Amino acid sequence: MDASVSAVVTFDFQAWTVAQLDRVESALSKWVPADAPAGLGAAMRYAVLDGGKRLRPLLVMAAAEAAGAQAPAAARQRIDEAALRAACAVELIHAYSLVHDDMPCMDNDVLRRGKPTVHVKFGEARALLAGDALQALAFELLTPVDGCMSASVQAALCRLLARAAGHDGMAGGQAIDLASVGVALSEDQLRQMHRLKTGALLRGSVLMGVACDERAEAGATGVVQALTRYGDAMGLAFQVVDDILDVITDTATLGKTAGKDAAAAKPTYVSLLGLDRAKSYAQALYAQAIAALDAIGLDHAQTEALRALAGVVVHREK
Amino acid sequence: MDASVSAVVTFDFQAWTVAQLDRVESALSKWVPADAPAGLGAAMRYAVLDGGKRLRPLLVMAAAEAAGAQAPAAARQRIDEAALRAACAVELIHAYSLVHDDMPCMDNDVLRRGKPTVHVKFGEARALLAGDALQALAFELLTPVDGCMSASVQAALCRLLARAAGHDGMAGGQAIDLASVGVALSEDQLRQMHRLKTGALLRGSVLMGVACDERAEAGATGVVQALTRYGDAMGLAFQVVDDILDVITDTATLGKTAGKDAAAAKPTYVSLLGLDRAKSYAQALYAQAIAALDAIGLDHAQTEALRALAGVVVHREK
Repeated sequence: MDASVSAVVTFDFQAWTVAQLDRVESALSKWVPADAPAGLGAAMRYAVLDGGKRLRPLLVMAAAEAAGAQAPAAARQRIDEAALRAACAVELIHAYSLVHDDMPCMDNDVLRRGKPTVHVKFGEARALLAGDALQALAFELLTPVDGCMSASVQAALCRLLARAAGHDGMAGGQAIDLASVGVALSEDQLRQMHRLKTGALLRGSVLMGVACDERAEAGATGVVQALTRYGDAMGLAFQVVDDILDVITDTATLGKTAGKDAAAAKPTYVSLLGLDRAKSYAQALYAQAIAALDAIGLDHAQTEALRALAGVVVHREK
Repeated sequence: MDASVSAVVTFDFQAWTVAQLDRVESALSKWVPADAPAGLGAAMRYAVLDGGKRLRPLLVMAAAEAAGAQAPAAARQRIDEAALRAACAVELIHAYSLVHDDMPCMDNDVLRRGKPTVHVKFGEARALLAGDALQALAFELLTPVDGCMSASVQAALCRLLARAAGHDGMAGGQAIDLASVGVALSEDQLRQMHRLKTGALLRGSVLMGVACDERAEAGATGVVQALTRYGDAMGLAFQVVDDILDVITDTATLGKTAGKDAAAAKPTYVSLLGLDRAKSYAQALYAQAIAALDAIGLDHAQTEALRALAGVVVHREK
């Protein structure tokens, strides 16, 4: 039995996930400051340390592992440290977007994961500031002075995160989402909205993982391109499955109010394609993601975590 | 007459300012995207291209000139290009903070410089997103791919901006400000609030100007320390003068409603020190800033713009 087959057999995704989440949760707890002034720190920590699924950090860590699989041991250590910072930075951007999204002027949600949303707990003004401070903190995490990351990795990570979060990424997608309530979108328009709103940060997570390897900029463009395709498929699949779950969860729990998307007259993949075609589409995107990994030119074992995460995105039940 | 004396005599601050503002306005107009989706670009441009005084960009440009005064010509060209990006990035952070500050859950201002505020014109949700996107765009401007800035300058600028904008800078100061309405602060507490709220970004502007010179990180710490003192004094002086103007403007224009700070029961330097001592304090801070420049080890001519900007901050009438 050669080494790569052995690695395939022994890869334990559950154990891998537990180990990564342990590191990410500890790092977030260390880096999101409790002592930021006038209650700001408490609001920031409440927004971040809330038991989210941490899908984006896991994508960063898995992509960094794949990118660094063939690096020498000393380089892997540095890639790993950069990946932890990148993973936390991406999660801070995701967390801030949820805080602002929940505010009364946006979705006006009062509960998230069973707890009062940040603005309900801390007031709107402090929620607004906490979100703003979390975005700044993301870039602070990416630019440490302790020498653990080279300047070129720092700059590349800031570049990728800024683009994924901004007007041509998450914030742009949210603007389209706002404008699309009650509007009939074509499939292309819906895809464009989600490519930005959720896809950009998921794809950004994968690309940031790759960029933790200093060699990424110089060469290895095949890996970058393949992982970009993987990230694109994952970003879209995530949203298609979200739309499906919104409907399925309603159907299964009769007596509850209608699905949130339908209530808000938001266009979804289910409203556009119907439930069955939406399910097929999610499967097709999963197959695209796996095909991109197959084409990457790495051993199967080196992309195990990315493969498993694709399964998590498409087959999750909540 | 030696060269430095000649330069002192011929420095034309007015012409310098016009030339810098011309470049900054053009660059902002080029870099803040009109085509961001669903009206987001229009809101972003409305927030930024509004004829502000651009004090922070001018500080960046002046500090970069001072820092690069003794660099070879080829290096000066690169410093200058980096400074333009840094100047615009700082202004985007300032602009986003005004958009969010004006929102109903914060100061609830409907007019800024005689025009409707962003949320009045574009709605609260789009104002929130425009602010978020402007913060991301600031970091995007600092991380270009075209080779005009080295990775180490990019990383240093992102580091300085993230810290100036975040929980230990502007956002932290705003949180203290929120919590301080109707509260009697000591002079130390008031100074701490303003050191973060307005001081951090003004000081950050000066330090970012210095960091545009690649040699800044390696050495020249004397210059960095002196300019940090200059930036600290300027940041504080700006706020003291703001507080004075809030009172003086009321007194001079009888029949208008009382000063905004007094109406909001916000602690100010005038409420704490009285008008005369507040004026003396502003003058003392101006003297500190000039003394820091005198101690910098550069020719007087090389810090002319910084000297003039200190005068603008302390002697402005609005």
